[in-house]
Amino acid sequence: MPKIVDHSERKSNIAEATWRVIIHQGIKGATVRNIAAEAGVSLGALRHYFSTHHELLVFAMNLVKERVTARIVDIMQTDLPPREQVASVLLELLPTDDGSMAEMEVWFAFIFHLKSAGEHNDEHHDAIYPLIIQLIDYLDQHELLRQELDKDSEAERLYAVVDGLALHAMLEPERLNSQRMIRVLNVHLDSICSSAQPQ
Amino acid sequence: MPKIVDHSERKSNIAEATWRVIIHQGIKGATVRNIAAEAGVSLGALRHYFSTHHELLVFAMNLVKERVTARIVDIMQTDLPPREQVASVLLELLPTDDGSMAEMEVWFAFIFHLKSAGEHNDEHHDAIYPLIIQLIDYLDQHELLRQELDKDSEAERLYAVVDGLALHAMLEPERLNSQRMIRVLNVHLDSICSSAQPQ
Repeated sequence: MPKIVDHSERKSNIAEATWRVIIHQGIKGATVRNIAAEAGVSLGALRHYFSTHHELLVFAMNLVKERVTARIVDIMQTDLPPREQVASVLLELLPTDDGSMAEMEVWFAFIFHLKSAGEHNDEHHDAIYPLIIQLIDYLDQHELLRQELDKDSEAERLYAVVDGLALHAMLEPERLNSQRMIRVLNVHLDSICSSAQPQ
Repeated sequence: MPKIVDHSERKSNIAEATWRVIIHQGIKGATVRNIAAEAGVSLGALRHYFSTHHELLVFAMNLVKERVTARIVDIMQTDLPPREQVASVLLELLPTDDGSMAEMEVWFAFIFHLKSAGEHNDEHHDAIYPLIIQLIDYLDQHELLRQELDKDSEAERLYAVVDGLALHAMLEPERLNSQRMIRVLNVHLDSICSSAQPQ
């Protein structure tokens, strides 16, 4: 019988090898040759799955997005109180452990690679902002958002807080560790949530 | 008489050529050869001023920092009310026009280049956070900061808001234009400043 190869799993393995190469050698080191070596596959096999370098990077990037999205969907299906549910979703967007720090590094490396290559990156980046709008709406629907706040400004501000913390945790991890990041996020949530409402 | 060359000006010209190359071709395109061509100097002349590629990039980066710092010092010497002075300083850290957007792109390109090259970048990046701490202290000294706030958390949060806005304005300029960025920054300042105090 022919050997059965799970194509989807093989592609994921190559994507994960791509992440490891980006983390250790930067986006510049993420050549097809280095990725094939890291994944333990031949150049020919790699080209069978991904016909261009760009296609491979986009796949690796989308896998990060899919995994984050899957974790967020799981959280939204729990019975957590709304305020805690929102906090948990936002924590998924922050690099709070080695795994999510690696995802964050791949994400930023990729975003800047596209930016400096002059590629239009809306499809890759814009996924987060609509989610943040939903979270602000969700707090508002549960009467947790302070009534005097402008939802549009608050979505933009929350998005800045989350990505600003993520960026600084990546660049200055000695000061901004996971515990400190979570504390600042909660200070922000407290400041936009009505204290009179049940959490 | 020999031609008098202003070395400092020549170095600044080469640094500005470096910025233009980074903006148009990304950090990858910022080779010594491309920079010399953009600056209109020979490779030999460029090497006379900068013995290594890294030295050139660090100089270009530091020139961004010096110019931003000079603008901030100017603002701190004005007679603006404290709240407006703080807002003006923070605006210098945001890409509100083409010039500051270019500086921001150079800054981020450089930071990520160092990060992916595994270089320790504290000396280049940490300049901003101490400034943010000073601004929070300054608001507090003028009894503008809301008394119930924790200054340490607020410095970290303000830093995240500012860099998060800067990052998003660079990556998603169609949504986050200059006017919107300024509005969100002011929403944030209003939220941490006591409304009972004179501004």
